[in-house]
Amino acid sequence: MNQVNRRITLAARPDGYPSEANFKLVEDKVPSPGSGQVLVRALYLSLDPYMRGRMSDAKSYAAPVPIGGVMEGGIVGRVTASENPRFKVGDMVEGRLGWQDYGLSDGRNIRAIDPKAGPLSYNLGVLGMPGLTAYFGLLDVCRPHAGDTVVVSAASGAVGQVVGQIAKIMDCRVVGIAGGRDKVDYITRELGFDVGIDYKSGDLGAALAKACPDGVDCYFDNVGGKISDAVFNNLAYRARIAICGQIALYNVDTPEPGSRNLRFMLVNRAVMEGFLVSDFTDRWPMGLKRLSRWVREGKIKYREDVVQGLENAPKAFLRLFDGSNFGKLVVKIADE
Amino acid sequence: MNQVNRRITLAARPDGYPSEANFKLVEDKVPSPGSGQVLVRALYLSLDPYMRGRMSDAKSYAAPVPIGGVMEGGIVGRVTASENPRFKVGDMVEGRLGWQDYGLSDGRNIRAIDPKAGPLSYNLGVLGMPGLTAYFGLLDVCRPHAGDTVVVSAASGAVGQVVGQIAKIMDCRVVGIAGGRDKVDYITRELGFDVGIDYKSGDLGAALAKACPDGVDCYFDNVGGKISDAVFNNLAYRARIAICGQIALYNVDTPEPGSRNLRFMLVNRAVMEGFLVSDFTDRWPMGLKRLSRWVREGKIKYREDVVQGLENAPKAFLRLFDGSNFGKLVVKIADE
Repeated sequence: MNQVNRRITLAARPDGYPSEANFKLVEDKVPSPGSGQVLVRALYLSLDPYMRGRMSDAKSYAAPVPIGGVMEGGIVGRVTASENPRFKVGDMVEGRLGWQDYGLSDGRNIRAIDPKAGPLSYNLGVLGMPGLTAYFGLLDVCRPHAGDTVVVSAASGAVGQVVGQIAKIMDCRVVGIAGGRDKVDYITRELGFDVGIDYKSGDLGAALAKACPDGVDCYFDNVGGKISDAVFNNLAYRARIAICGQIALYNVDTPEPGSRNLRFMLVNRAVMEGFLVSDFTDRWPMGLKRLSRWVREGKIKYREDVVQGLENAPKAFLRLFDGSNFGKLVVKIADE
Repeated sequence: MNQVNRRITLAARPDGYPSEANFKLVEDKVPSPGSGQVLVRALYLSLDPYMRGRMSDAKSYAAPVPIGGVMEGGIVGRVTASENPRFKVGDMVEGRLGWQDYGLSDGRNIRAIDPKAGPLSYNLGVLGMPGLTAYFGLLDVCRPHAGDTVVVSAASGAVGQVVGQIAKIMDCRVVGIAGGRDKVDYITRELGFDVGIDYKSGDLGAALAKACPDGVDCYFDNVGGKISDAVFNNLAYRARIAICGQIALYNVDTPEPGSRNLRFMLVNRAVMEGFLVSDFTDRWPMGLKRLSRWVREGKIKYREDVVQGLENAPKAFLRLFDGSNFGKLVVKIADE
């Protein structure tokens, strides 16, 4: 093969908000698979907030991307060459092969996907890591009962959309917090959330109190910061809080000063738990089966925000942190 | 009866730190028990941080003391008159009869105590509410395993002493945080904690990192604020945090600005839970039985800070918030 493999690498660690200068597009030759290896042509790349963590060398649950290394990320692609008996040319797979046109795998970090389960890119969203994050974070960490009031932040995002719709399937009252009228309209009119709150307009605390007259039983937190503070002031007795993401904090070295008061935990006898989707790997197949069924049955809808071209991935990634993406952010790298 | 019943009432709600001006000593006649009632002569009064909450009318888990009402509080005393068949004159009881010489009970908010189980005042401490708080908060909320590193704040206080000693019984590594050399010496030399850290001297974060090389598995939080922030930076994977008290915050209308970053929850997949001893009422008898045995066997020692005279209760109460009490604070009201 003499084709070019474009790769987006980490040029420098960001100080605060990342910028396009933190990335560098380099071109290599497309590699050939060695024994046991599979070569995958990426079709879609997933862009997710966790990637900001990999750009930093602060202590986290995973090692950082080295300077000059290819940015970490999940892709959906087609097997174009295989020296691994488990995969054959033409198979569709999903896996963490990074921000590049072509990736090599030993077969352990990719999974075969069913092209008939939904649009291919859904395997990076509702039928992939974000969907599973929603599934386990809501069901195992928040543990909602029918009738509970469930609040989710970043409600129109990759994870939030799914959280709210699973909660609706369980007959919960669902309140979504999102930024802007369009997003609020989407979660209420399209997805069936009971209430949508635009955190950019008006008094969030008052809106929450009005939307949750019996308090918040479950809070699925994708953002942290001031939005969470407002929810914490409206908890119900024995509220359960799932800490999934803290995107408000990812780009600040020193979090903005705010209340460090944990009295709300005591007064409400709340339970708060941080989790990662990787804590539930043994049950991913079961979760994907259910999510697929709900998508097939139309019980879960899923909005994507599709950007064209690998070269536009850095710029698109930055939109995760100013709230300007609307739905699951994916980059289309090549035609299916 | 023509004796005087001295009662300490709430004169005004505090704004920030309470002062003696918030209290007023009034004198009434000693009441006579009506049908089904018991008159109790208080011998010891317990002073506890939760009382600060009752002085305020902010939302909490219990109603505030009304202005002019007798301050809420637990006492140990002797039955001096009884129209209730369950109690006879001379019985020793413990119950929430308030800051006064004599209290009336319908028999439902007092319990008979065994004068042979330990010093009478222990029924307000290790064999009472603080001991049970330690027992259930550690065992049910923190859920320590043998070998775990357990950190407790306010480690020489009413609850903290017991938390650390139960953790030692379970073969945990115990690190206590207290203010001042004397308290640190007490918890390590007298109580057998593995490490004592004086939060008033040196870098608390560095001392914690050194004392907990494998991270903090369990944190029993009595204080909140900056001390908790330092512990949160040293958590182990799947750490369990019991929010028992937030004394650092009880006297501030607006908590001092600090990190509202909950990223530590995510990185460590920590679990945080607020609790009250009243959440475990059905198992209090079992808890008291075990605490009594440990005290009898010498496995739990208990330091008290005894103040003489009901009239000195307001002044003594204030010491809970400047850290100058050393051990469980009780007021001796009358000779046994």
